Amino acid sequence: MTTQSDDTQPSAPRTSPPGPGSAALGRPTLQQVAALAGVSRATASRVVNGGAGVRLHVQAKVRKAVEELGYVPNPAARTLMTRRHDAVAVVVAEPESRVFSDPFFAQQLRGIGRELSAAAVQLVLLLVTDAGDYAQVGRYLAAGHVDGALIFSLHRDNPLPVMVDRLGLPVVYGGRPEWGEPGSIPLYVDTDNRGGARAAAEHLVARGRRRIAVITGPLDQTSSVDRLDGFRDVFPNFPDSDPDLLVEGDFTAPGGRRAMERLLDRSPDLDAVFACSDLMAAGALAVLAERGLRVPEDVAVVGYDDSDTAAQWASPPLTTVRQDIEEMGRLMARLLLNRLQLEFDGRPDEAAALTSVVTPAELIVRRSS
Amino acid sequence: MTTQSDDTQPSAPRTSPPGPGSAALGRPTLQQVAALAGVSRATASRVVNGGAGVRLHVQAKVRKAVEELGYVPNPAARTLMTRRHDAVAVVVAEPESRVFSDPFFAQQLRGIGRELSAAAVQLVLLLVTDAGDYAQVGRYLAAGHVDGALIFSLHRDNPLPVMVDRLGLPVVYGGRPEWGEPGSIPLYVDTDNRGGARAAAEHLVARGRRRIAVITGPLDQTSSVDRLDGFRDVFPNFPDSDPDLLVEGDFTAPGGRRAMERLLDRSPDLDAVFACSDLMAAGALAVLAERGLRVPEDVAVVGYDDSDTAAQWASPPLTTVRQDIEEMGRLMARLLLNRLQLEFDGRPDEAAALTSVVTPAELIVRRSS
Repeated sequence: MTTQSDDTQPSAPRTSPPGPGSAALGRPTLQQVAALAGVSRATASRVVNGGAGVRLHVQAKVRKAVEELGYVPNPAARTLMTRRHDAVAVVVAEPESRVFSDPFFAQQLRGIGRELSAAAVQLVLLLVTDAGDYAQVGRYLAAGHVDGALIFSLHRDNPLPVMVDRLGLPVVYGGRPEWGEPGSIPLYVDTDNRGGARAAAEHLVARGRRRIAVITGPLDQTSSVDRLDGFRDVFPNFPDSDPDLLVEGDFTAPGGRRAMERLLDRSPDLDAVFACSDLMAAGALAVLAERGLRVPEDVAVVGYDDSDTAAQWASPPLTTVRQDIEEMGRLMARLLLNRLQLEFDGRPDEAAALTSVVTPAELIVRRSS
Repeated sequence: MTTQSDDTQPSAPRTSPPGPGSAALGRPTLQQVAALAGVSRATASRVVNGGAGVRLHVQAKVRKAVEELGYVPNPAARTLMTRRHDAVAVVVAEPESRVFSDPFFAQQLRGIGRELSAAAVQLVLLLVTDAGDYAQVGRYLAAGHVDGALIFSLHRDNPLPVMVDRLGLPVVYGGRPEWGEPGSIPLYVDTDNRGGARAAAEHLVARGRRRIAVITGPLDQTSSVDRLDGFRDVFPNFPDSDPDLLVEGDFTAPGGRRAMERLLDRSPDLDAVFACSDLMAAGALAVLAERGLRVPEDVAVVGYDDSDTAAQWASPPLTTVRQDIEEMGRLMARLLLNRLQLEFDGRPDEAAALTSVVTPAELIVRRSS
């Protein structure tokens, strides 16, 4: 990266409108910052533009002066010089109503937030209300407001990956993307969905269950397909052996309710349900209770996620597959920060290679199975 | 606003690094957009830079071509020319863990999201992990990535209002700010907290309750102070008459638990509790159940918010003060959009004056009182 040693904006367009508030309020100058910090104007400028080559205690003095004076560099000039915003976009490819009702996303965002906050990088959550909003998200990303993006819960037809790829924006995905040639698959953090589902299926077999139904997630997401594949590692002919034992859900509690109702209508003799998220399992438990079926005596239930609320507050408490959701968020953020360090400074943290990560899954047995 | 009719970037600095991916991928040009849309390059440029003076059906053709080709204007050049980002920041001045655990914020964000989405304006949620992050939020706002901001759940010591005021950034607050001289108070959307609390107090009096405890919100927020004032409209000597009947809470369920425990320890003879949020009321209900006190026979409970989940799922269902939270979010977004229209185009929507709004509150009586 080239860092100019001054911010006199020799090339800023004369026709550009002033930044917000610049004319009216007598905005503090870089010269004043330098004077207050007791450093040269050139040093103050270097700190304002990233701090390369300036010792840490000098940087601290300048940053303190910047804060005290409320100094704001000319935004456009700073952007053109440094290209670094110390901000990362997060896109959860679901309507905001789901982002706020599924504890999975809150946990993942908590991990991301902690890691970014520790690095003094702003978390910019881009919310969408409906599918038409992705073009708008793409425009925001294209306009250069962030250094990179974390994208998760992608469905197959989402246009974002093509947009960010075209932009060359550094991205880490949550969940394995299903595109990319070997060697060019984008960076991602995933969990061992297949292994987790296999453990759930083996557990139900060990409990003597034989008529096991599956409520999958949306099958246009790799996590859902992987969990179904893990179940099929134990039951290779599923669902051909009995198509009535499979219903595609949507990872929500109402979706779990609807799926359980359909399963019981079609297969009243089922003796177990593997619901591929805890929220869907919670919906299924409600239907089983309404129909007077005892859990686990009549029907064993296994969920997925070990969500803070859904699994542990369920009645009875839910056997489930634990994934460390907050840690996955943390790892996504760390991977992107390393990628950005490489981009801007040319030196990634040596301890952290730039490779995708798959975190383990673990069966947690509680009273529902 | 001055709109240049061309984007040849006559004044872009020669030393500026290229935008992301611009060199490598043979990015589509404005000339190609114009050709595909069947318009002149100058017209295409005007549309890309906001569309001023171009008829709507022509704008639509150009936008279609932009989308088909994946055309991305040079971000810095576009910023310098138009200053408009079609993006609005939302800052909930609470740690992200609270943003995701309190349904109030989800409802408010839903209203904001719907209004912004309909206007094709991106909702940029800036999350904070702890109080130190506000300087970082301020830097993001100062760097010109958004056209304006919606800020809510402000506490008295938060540095954001001073920062955004210095920047001249258009802002609408959720909840009445407590600063500002008459005539210069910032725009806000609030609800009639005082009237709502007064109705709750009158209801408890009508039910024959005499030893009424109050769990307030944080008293460094105007909403909390206003609700206490409403209660005092009915009990003017409260809490001096009996200081043991007042505990300051924090709007969370665990905070409501702790407050209820203290109240019962200090005033075992209380016969009602007015908790200034439904989440705190839910925490209070749990403590009352644990101590074998019947609701409402022994202790009547009234909450505040009529939250989707906390009030309606409570056992027994909660008497509460309803405020239309989603509508408040919608109104905040609408007010800011009108303010921005005035800023950028000089013509606010005539039907919507730029004045602060206070929405009504309404007592909803359920079984807890």
